[in-house]
Amino acid sequence: MGKNRKSKFITPRSENYSEWYNSIVKMSGMAEDSAVRGCMVIKPYGYSIWEKIQSSLDQMLKDSGHSNAYFPLFVPKSFFAKEAQHVKGFAKECAVVTHYRLKEDSKRGVGVDPAAKLTEELIVRPTSETVIWRSYKNWIQSYRDLPLLINQWANVVRWEMRTRPFLRTSEFLWQEGHTAHATKQEAIDETLKILKIYNTLVEDVMGIATIQGIKTETERFAGAEETYCIETLMQDGKALQAGTSHFLGQNFARAFDVQFATKDEGLEYVWGTSWGVSTRLIGALIMSHGDDKGLVLPPNLAPIQVVFVPIYKSEEEKQAIQSRIEEWMQVAKQLGIACHFDQRTTQSPGFKFSEWEMKGVPIRIALGARDLENQTAEVYRRDTDTKEIISQDLIIEHIQKTLPIIQENMYQKSTSFLQWHTRRIDDYSEFQKYIANSSGLASCHWDGTAETEIKIKEDTKATIRCIPLDAAEEEGKCIFSGKPSKRRVLFAKAY
Amino acid sequence: MGKNRKSKFITPRSENYSEWYNSIVKMSGMAEDSAVRGCMVIKPYGYSIWEKIQSSLDQMLKDSGHSNAYFPLFVPKSFFAKEAQHVKGFAKECAVVTHYRLKEDSKRGVGVDPAAKLTEELIVRPTSETVIWRSYKNWIQSYRDLPLLINQWANVVRWEMRTRPFLRTSEFLWQEGHTAHATKQEAIDETLKILKIYNTLVEDVMGIATIQGIKTETERFAGAEETYCIETLMQDGKALQAGTSHFLGQNFARAFDVQFATKDEGLEYVWGTSWGVSTRLIGALIMSHGDDKGLVLPPNLAPIQVVFVPIYKSEEEKQAIQSRIEEWMQVAKQLGIACHFDQRTTQSPGFKFSEWEMKGVPIRIALGARDLENQTAEVYRRDTDTKEIISQDLIIEHIQKTLPIIQENMYQKSTSFLQWHTRRIDDYSEFQKYIANSSGLASCHWDGTAETEIKIKEDTKATIRCIPLDAAEEEGKCIFSGKPSKRRVLFAKAY
Repeated sequence: MGKNRKSKFITPRSENYSEWYNSIVKMSGMAEDSAVRGCMVIKPYGYSIWEKIQSSLDQMLKDSGHSNAYFPLFVPKSFFAKEAQHVKGFAKECAVVTHYRLKEDSKRGVGVDPAAKLTEELIVRPTSETVIWRSYKNWIQSYRDLPLLINQWANVVRWEMRTRPFLRTSEFLWQEGHTAHATKQEAIDETLKILKIYNTLVEDVMGIATIQGIKTETERFAGAEETYCIETLMQDGKALQAGTSHFLGQNFARAFDVQFATKDEGLEYVWGTSWGVSTRLIGALIMSHGDDKGLVLPPNLAPIQVVFVPIYKSEEEKQAIQSRIEEWMQVAKQLGIACHFDQRTTQSPGFKFSEWEMKGVPIRIALGARDLENQTAEVYRRDTDTKEIISQDLIIEHIQKTLPIIQENMYQKSTSFLQWHTRRIDDYSEFQKYIANSSGLASCHWDGTAETEIKIKEDTKATIRCIPLDAAEEEGKCIFSGKPSKRRVLFAKAY
Repeated sequence: MGKNRKSKFITPRSENYSEWYNSIVKMSGMAEDSAVRGCMVIKPYGYSIWEKIQSSLDQMLKDSGHSNAYFPLFVPKSFFAKEAQHVKGFAKECAVVTHYRLKEDSKRGVGVDPAAKLTEELIVRPTSETVIWRSYKNWIQSYRDLPLLINQWANVVRWEMRTRPFLRTSEFLWQEGHTAHATKQEAIDETLKILKIYNTLVEDVMGIATIQGIKTETERFAGAEETYCIETLMQDGKALQAGTSHFLGQNFARAFDVQFATKDEGLEYVWGTSWGVSTRLIGALIMSHGDDKGLVLPPNLAPIQVVFVPIYKSEEEKQAIQSRIEEWMQVAKQLGIACHFDQRTTQSPGFKFSEWEMKGVPIRIALGARDLENQTAEVYRRDTDTKEIISQDLIIEHIQKTLPIIQENMYQKSTSFLQWHTRRIDDYSEFQKYIANSSGLASCHWDGTAETEIKIKEDTKATIRCIPLDAAEEEGKCIFSGKPSKRRVLFAKAY
């Protein structure tokens, strides 16, 4: 009953994927639009998932020698303009602070105080390369100061006209790493090391299959020499860039004059990298695993891994069921399993079932009066949407065994999806149809020019997601121009 | 040698306390001014201390039923203006976003695009009551939705003309809790519960003695009915407000029309609280415990609790010392002790000693060739600035025993300091001298009027830090006006 009441508000994926996404975000209590243009409110359940992503990644970054720090929110306009490509890339989406005071205005209530105009406008950071490299100029004198491996967790603002929760918002949360190195090779190694860490996060923690690759010039980060990325494929056949790692060459070192004394007493510009993942990952999570009942969370990321729901009629039944569940809770918590006992009396078991399904909790254990008699419990697996009757004395063991199975199953499902929806295509009209139907990734030959890339985009809305790192050399002809090509690249429509 | 080289850059406290503070912040690698006006860069060592504060407090907040969430950085001007006192309190220190795009300008390089002017200006949040209560309007319908216990970790901006690292910066990091309740009493209880949590953080984790109290109307948060606070006393006799917890009454509920259906089907405005501590705590930490050698960190907060420094001449000595230290490191880490082995070869032991003293590491263990012979090690305690020779087989035990002793000792020292520097004063000229000498807290009678409070401030720069929660009723006469008073309040100059 409660179940139907809830379910009818979810738009099925097959009907309207975009509405399905929005309803999941809203109904699972992940986020909502705020009254502030383009900004969302990340609600407690959504934020707890972000905290799990943060703590997993933060540990990996610390284990690989990175330290956290914090740099200013504001970037003076002049800093911002120092790296030519960089300012070009971000100028069109900047929130600009021009004044530092309000004043009472008899006519309009409260207005901006024109006397408090800044002599130099401040940009709300869309990314922090400029402000950080400005600091690095003071931090780096000698090769002994290198490498410098810094990360920050922060909010950034990129003004967006059309926004969607998690996927594209004017303000979002992310981490941005900024490292400085003595040699080009070391900087490239760092860029790839981070790509591997991101890959571990997305595959092993989030259970999403990825492709590691290099961006074409058109899709490269403004100010980078090379952008590496991990791409993922959503259930609607559109790609989503889950993380990027940039090799900056000496661009920012030159822009901010960051030189170091080498071992043999020379003076050289420092080599840089920067890299980031954001709350966008939560969008990827929803669209990779969710189904028409709601979210499906991989156990390694689920704020609640196991939920217990009691089903009783009499006070006596309630007592017996409660004490049994409390025993399990205690043991499970000691084993480090995140579990929750839904003791609400204002909601029916059916309502609770559909709510926890909506919230994607990997395992639900229901215990009723008949179960007490039979010494069993009903175990529901969210990823397969199936129930099993399990003997009570095996419950803990069953949970311990099943959580990693769910994690692995979700990853395998995602991997299969990615494989099945990647097709080698050599004929342009087939390509057009494939893309028009949003069928997935198209592995095609490309002549290497931005011109072709742009024409294909104009024609089909598909972009080159990446040149896969493991792409084999293969002689071929560009799918669009027919010109020679040495390897296939991946095209798709993208978020 | 290295020691002297370093030490000579620290200004002694007795010479210039303010310069001492600045040199500690800088030399310990905690923070530095940025090139952005009024904003600081929190460097890795400073940030790692903030992370310890965050994780301690975050756990306490979660254990007491609070959830984290995230609300927008920007507050539309119209929201901001809804609570009359609130806007009055913050209008003079707001960063205002007026445009959302830059454009290339042939003359000046990059300029603000006048075509991209916002129809309504956005304020960079100085605090989030307004944007959060605007959301709560949608979240709260019934008593079943209450209490709502939300916290957010965020950056905020309050434009400051004169800034000092950690103590007063235009941008700072903090947590801000915002809760909603069905009854007045429940909201007041929450306000006090949080005050107690803050007190635990500051006393038990940071080792700083506090006074819990209530602010006078003059010092109250803009929009609150009552502001509770914890006050601390710095070594220079000036007070520092370490945290505040506000009972908001129904002010924000009224401003944003947040009503709820009561159990007996009435409709009432919700009762609110808000509370916060910030990176300012790090300023309190430095000024409570630091000495002329640098920072002194309480073990519960120290990113590194024990540092091992090897002293060797030959490669053979180095090997033996290294393997002994590595054994200790392994055992200590398993015991959850944060330790670090300083293996740098480019720095002398003396340099390392003074560097770790500067950074306030609670215990330093030096191991040299003679120690190897004698089966001993030299153990240095940062809080007492003393050395002991300890038998090698007792080292781990000694560390385990000593860390809590240091924690307790630092707190006791802080408590004594606070007691010795709090004086009951009933004579105004004595009061003037006491305050002029910045001797500490003055416990005095006050007539309860803002007028007297302001006159005393104008005369002496002292403000009422708080009315202590445990202040006994006591008949007396106001130290300034001679009018009757029922209890003593605490005056001091303050940060």
